[in-house]
Amino acid sequence: MVEQENQEQKIEGRNAVLEALRAGKTIDKLYVLDRCMDGPVRTIVREAKKHDLILNFVTKERLDQLSETGKHQGVIAIAAAYTYASVEDLLERAREKGEQPFLILLDGIEDPHNLGAIIRTANLAGAHGVIMPKHRAVGITPAVVRASAGAVAYTPVAKVTNLKTTMEELKRQGMWFVCADMDGTVMYDMDLTGPVGLVIGKEGEGVSRLVKESCDMTAAIPMKGEIDSLNASVAAGVLAYEIVRQRRNA
Amino acid sequence: MVEQENQEQKIEGRNAVLEALRAGKTIDKLYVLDRCMDGPVRTIVREAKKHDLILNFVTKERLDQLSETGKHQGVIAIAAAYTYASVEDLLERAREKGEQPFLILLDGIEDPHNLGAIIRTANLAGAHGVIMPKHRAVGITPAVVRASAGAVAYTPVAKVTNLKTTMEELKRQGMWFVCADMDGTVMYDMDLTGPVGLVIGKEGEGVSRLVKESCDMTAAIPMKGEIDSLNASVAAGVLAYEIVRQRRNA
Repeated sequence: MVEQENQEQKIEGRNAVLEALRAGKTIDKLYVLDRCMDGPVRTIVREAKKHDLILNFVTKERLDQLSETGKHQGVIAIAAAYTYASVEDLLERAREKGEQPFLILLDGIEDPHNLGAIIRTANLAGAHGVIMPKHRAVGITPAVVRASAGAVAYTPVAKVTNLKTTMEELKRQGMWFVCADMDGTVMYDMDLTGPVGLVIGKEGEGVSRLVKESCDMTAAIPMKGEIDSLNASVAAGVLAYEIVRQRRNA
Repeated sequence: MVEQENQEQKIEGRNAVLEALRAGKTIDKLYVLDRCMDGPVRTIVREAKKHDLILNFVTKERLDQLSETGKHQGVIAIAAAYTYASVEDLLERAREKGEQPFLILLDGIEDPHNLGAIIRTANLAGAHGVIMPKHRAVGITPAVVRASAGAVAYTPVAKVTNLKTTMEELKRQGMWFVCADMDGTVMYDMDLTGPVGLVIGKEGEGVSRLVKESCDMTAAIPMKGEIDSLNASVAAGVLAYEIVRQRRNA
């Protein structure tokens, strides 16, 4: 189940580098054209100093050599690609803390703001990590990092080939899965204190049929209004905190 | 406390009109240049038919006359400006339903996605409306309408000159106000079943000092992680549903 993406990521060009810096992306090295001191490059240097990055002033020849796009505009940043955790890492975190595992599984969340907000919630609700499928989801992009308010640095995210297969494996290890659906039992009336995986479906579509079949419980958030559903990250927050509340009283 | 914005809003130009249609903005009239049938205009006509709008095919002279920008590109939509409710309207809704008032007050929410998601939550959690200050907040823009998933059509929003003054008036009518802050009492341990106004502060800053002084209670969402705070719309959702849970058991 392990998925590691350890390759370096080259970010070339002034806008891209500046955005990466401002998005809080981890930059390992920053190469800047020696004696190039026009406005945009100075802004980048200032931002880099704010983040205590070590600057390497190099010749144009060195930059041309490093460049993959041929459009470096005098700046190339070497960023660490986001390193995904393994599902085992997530369980290990629960063991280390002496807690029942609490994982959040995302079945096709595509909006980076929602993904970031959910990782942020996972961090604060004390979930041990987030699992998402390799193919149907957005990755950990700078927009996700920004929306997570930095939580991606603390709460591990695992990518798996098949969410259903992973769930079946985890069920053999004693975990229970709960998904959100209007047809379910009102969440306040279920026992969510055990080793639990909370499955959040895609905005507007909900949890897919196959994944839903692998869920042991279906929890409903009470809905008193006229519209169909909460925003996916709000629904994840409301359910995650119902788990927090029940575990607190358990 | 009444605030009505009943003026018409003219939307001119192909992109603007198409976006307004797709954002679900209420269009009262749509003027299209007669016999203009190129691609973008045809797309607008198709969208307008999807929404059962009545199309007015007019001459270029008529459009020029209607236009305020001089850049109508053959299409002008007349949209109803969003009509804000009064605070009294919100209380009246509670009375009609025979429920204790439950209002959500926004102290400076600026992000349209968060504002939309909060109105969406207000609708589903059964809040009777949303109050926001006239000057420090975003309005009900198409982005807000979209993020609210249509909830703005059901859950009234009132704009007030001074949030603190409004809170003081409502307190004289028996309402209690609770704001979210890490220093507060854990929300599960407070009584939120009465006539309550939930005050949500600005992303990253929280509730302002003056508004906080007018709050009767400070509720803390338990935070188990490394980062500072939940996304504002997630925090609003978690707190709103704690009110739902307590009222359900009351």
